[in-house]
Amino acid sequence: MSRVLVPLATGFEEIEAVTIIDVLRRAEIEVLVASLDAQFLVKGANGIVVQAQSQVKDINIDTLDMIVLPGGWDGAYALADDENIQRILKEMNEKGRYISAICAAPFALHKAGVLKHHYTCYPSAEEQIRLDGFMGDKAMVVEDGNIMTSRGPGTSICFALSIVKKLKGDEMYQMLKAGLLANFCEEAQSFSLKN
Amino acid sequence: MSRVLVPLATGFEEIEAVTIIDVLRRAEIEVLVASLDAQFLVKGANGIVVQAQSQVKDINIDTLDMIVLPGGWDGAYALADDENIQRILKEMNEKGRYISAICAAPFALHKAGVLKHHYTCYPSAEEQIRLDGFMGDKAMVVEDGNIMTSRGPGTSICFALSIVKKLKGDEMYQMLKAGLLANFCEEAQSFSLKN
Repeated sequence: MSRVLVPLATGFEEIEAVTIIDVLRRAEIEVLVASLDAQFLVKGANGIVVQAQSQVKDINIDTLDMIVLPGGWDGAYALADDENIQRILKEMNEKGRYISAICAAPFALHKAGVLKHHYTCYPSAEEQIRLDGFMGDKAMVVEDGNIMTSRGPGTSICFALSIVKKLKGDEMYQMLKAGLLANFCEEAQSFSLKN
Repeated sequence: MSRVLVPLATGFEEIEAVTIIDVLRRAEIEVLVASLDAQFLVKGANGIVVQAQSQVKDINIDTLDMIVLPGGWDGAYALADDENIQRILKEMNEKGRYISAICAAPFALHKAGVLKHHYTCYPSAEEQIRLDGFMGDKAMVVEDGNIMTSRGPGTSICFALSIVKKLKGDEMYQMLKAGLLANFCEEAQSFSLKN
């Protein structure tokens, strides 16, 4: 069974975090929802409180197939400032494991030095990351090597479905896309570059 | 300030509930997230636990502009079986207040006798509601009189944006649609019938 870590930091964007967890679990991927500290009730950018199941510091990285970072500016800055998250990003990148981030969260990948050349993020967040290699609205999801990035709340379902396709294959992707009524997520809207 | 009640029942569909709350709050609508009983930590259909702020039984209906029901089969059945929810639906309908439901939740409106002729819902849920008047995939959002209905997770953002347009106007709708990167929500995909 595939295993994915989704860390929740105060100020996370709720549509993004919940859509990722929901869609991955529908695909029978084990999703670990973890907080940055001992406070398991984590408040999002719009005041929605979601309960984490564990702490990031207690996660065994060796068991993870992927880490996915939700956006929201405060949440993304917190992920960029967190020692455990930064260490996990570097270790997973060294091992060639998948790393994904949406909205403002590619900033945390940039901080860890794991972001590849091509990427996307929430409009204007690129100003704090890097203009070179920023794909903007050319794709809802950009894949470069082991790094997948996406743009914001409206691309969350397509981003989560792209992760499903990567970890579980095209059949599961097609089945979930139909079940979620997410026909607006089309192949043509994702950009993939294999290193 | 507009005031909207979003009740959370065990088994609610997480993308739908969280998207509605998130988008409405971005539009500066006051959203009351309420549980059906004294258990404030409510578990969704995919195991995501969201914290409610109050109990439905303690809500003053007179202050509400709208009630919005998230889907998920278990959640929708629970809303259909809950005395307080059924009473609120009937009272709000008598007063001509707005009532909205997505996915399987139009079933709870049908049970309360408040669903109007034209509606939509999650594919196949219409078999437990009514075939006559079911709009299927002809629209992401169907409006008939004071009742708005929508289809499922993939239509959640467009559904929430339609509610924003109704309560806060077109300028807020356009601003949020752009900010959420939800350009796939087009006017043409909503069906509106004023009684």
